[in-house]
Amino acid sequence: MEFSSKLLERAVNEMSQLPGIGKRTALRLVLHLLRQPKEQTVMLSEALKRMRQDVKFCKSCHNISDVDLCEICASSNRNESVVCVVEDVRDVMAIENTSSFKGLYHVLGGKISPMDGIGPHDLNIESLVKKIKQGEIKELIFALSSTMEGDTTNFYIYKQIQDCKVYTTTIARGIAVGDELEYADEVTLGRSIVNRIPFENSLKS
Amino acid sequence: MEFSSKLLERAVNEMSQLPGIGKRTALRLVLHLLRQPKEQTVMLSEALKRMRQDVKFCKSCHNISDVDLCEICASSNRNESVVCVVEDVRDVMAIENTSSFKGLYHVLGGKISPMDGIGPHDLNIESLVKKIKQGEIKELIFALSSTMEGDTTNFYIYKQIQDCKVYTTTIARGIAVGDELEYADEVTLGRSIVNRIPFENSLKS
Ligand SMILES: [Zn+2]
Ligand SMILES: [Zn+2]
Repeated sequence: MEFSSKLLERAVNEMSQLPGIGKRTALRLVLHLLRQPKEQTVMLSEALKRMRQDVKFCKSCHNISDVDLCEICASSNRNESVVCVVEDVRDVMAIENTSSFKGLYHVLGGKISPMDGIGPHDLNIESLVKKIKQGEIKELIFALSSTMEGDTTNFYIYKQIQDCKVYTTTIARGIAVGDELEYADEVTLGRSIVNRIPFENSLKS
Repeated sequence: MEFSSKLLERAVNEMSQLPGIGKRTALRLVLHLLRQPKEQTVMLSEALKRMRQDVKFCKSCHNISDVDLCEICASSNRNESVVCVVEDVRDVMAIENTSSFKGLYHVLGGKISPMDGIGPHDLNIESLVKKIKQGEIKELIFALSSTMEGDTTNFYIYKQIQDCKVYTTTIARGIAVGDELEYADEVTLGRSIVNRIPFENSLKS
């Protein structure tokens, strides 16, 4: 791609560093900004820079927060004895959105993935194990994605805390509500049969 | 979408102003930046702001440029009597890429589109007409996209200059090189038959 302007070229190159944004898309986005009032670009630019420089992570659960202790950890309405382990802030947002969980979270910041060079020490695992060893947590819910990396991460944490008296659970896997059986993959379908629940329980929600 | 951080929320909101970037994609991109070194975000942010604030448009052809007269207009190797009318800078880049055109360009900055509130006066049409009326241009090539808006824009310009002695042409439409006939839309196929060329001419390129 030959650019008629270095300023344009630099903006397109930086934009195309983002995942899933190729050079063509980056050029389209940057040209769009050129057609909008200058203020829009200034606001985008400032919002990204301030976010990256000033954002904090909750000192207890590692969720993204503007203050030292996030709203959820600081709330008096949450059950502190139940902790849900998730991969990143999007999972916290997704679970909060269901209004079905009133415990606290622990955000790992990823999954163990040797292929991507991510080991246990790159994640917020140590602080979780320390929390569990203090003995105040009664239940730990694993809510990582159901992949090899997710399973590896669950198991790694499980081994670290197996001498602690904490009840560990994992979220249910099964056919999504509203989905047709015939389109489900067989592993999911298999698990949903093995982990079947009393019919009466299904009437509750 | 409920955010645990105002800084994060603002960054996602600004990012999702970009065309084709929804809230979910914006969140994914912003969280990616959080995992990268701070410098990446600072560089992206600076590149966008500087580009928007300092970029110039060539005073002759309106192409994006860092100087008053763009490289193409300033070059002594171009044929100044042939001008190719295009919609935006991407079209200049695409045509330059083919190395098949050695004239100059005129970038309109869009197409006439009453639906989007874009009239002739929102585009760089006046300066083009003025240029033509000076009588130095021998051929004007219309290379707008072949849509209703493109045709309207071509015709609007054509009417403005019909008393001038300039030869107006339009780029050939037809079946793309390497494409199967059966998959071509019928309008394109129809035009490619009506505008057929002597077979000997097709052997040249
Ligand atoms: Zn927290
Ligand atoms: Zn120029």
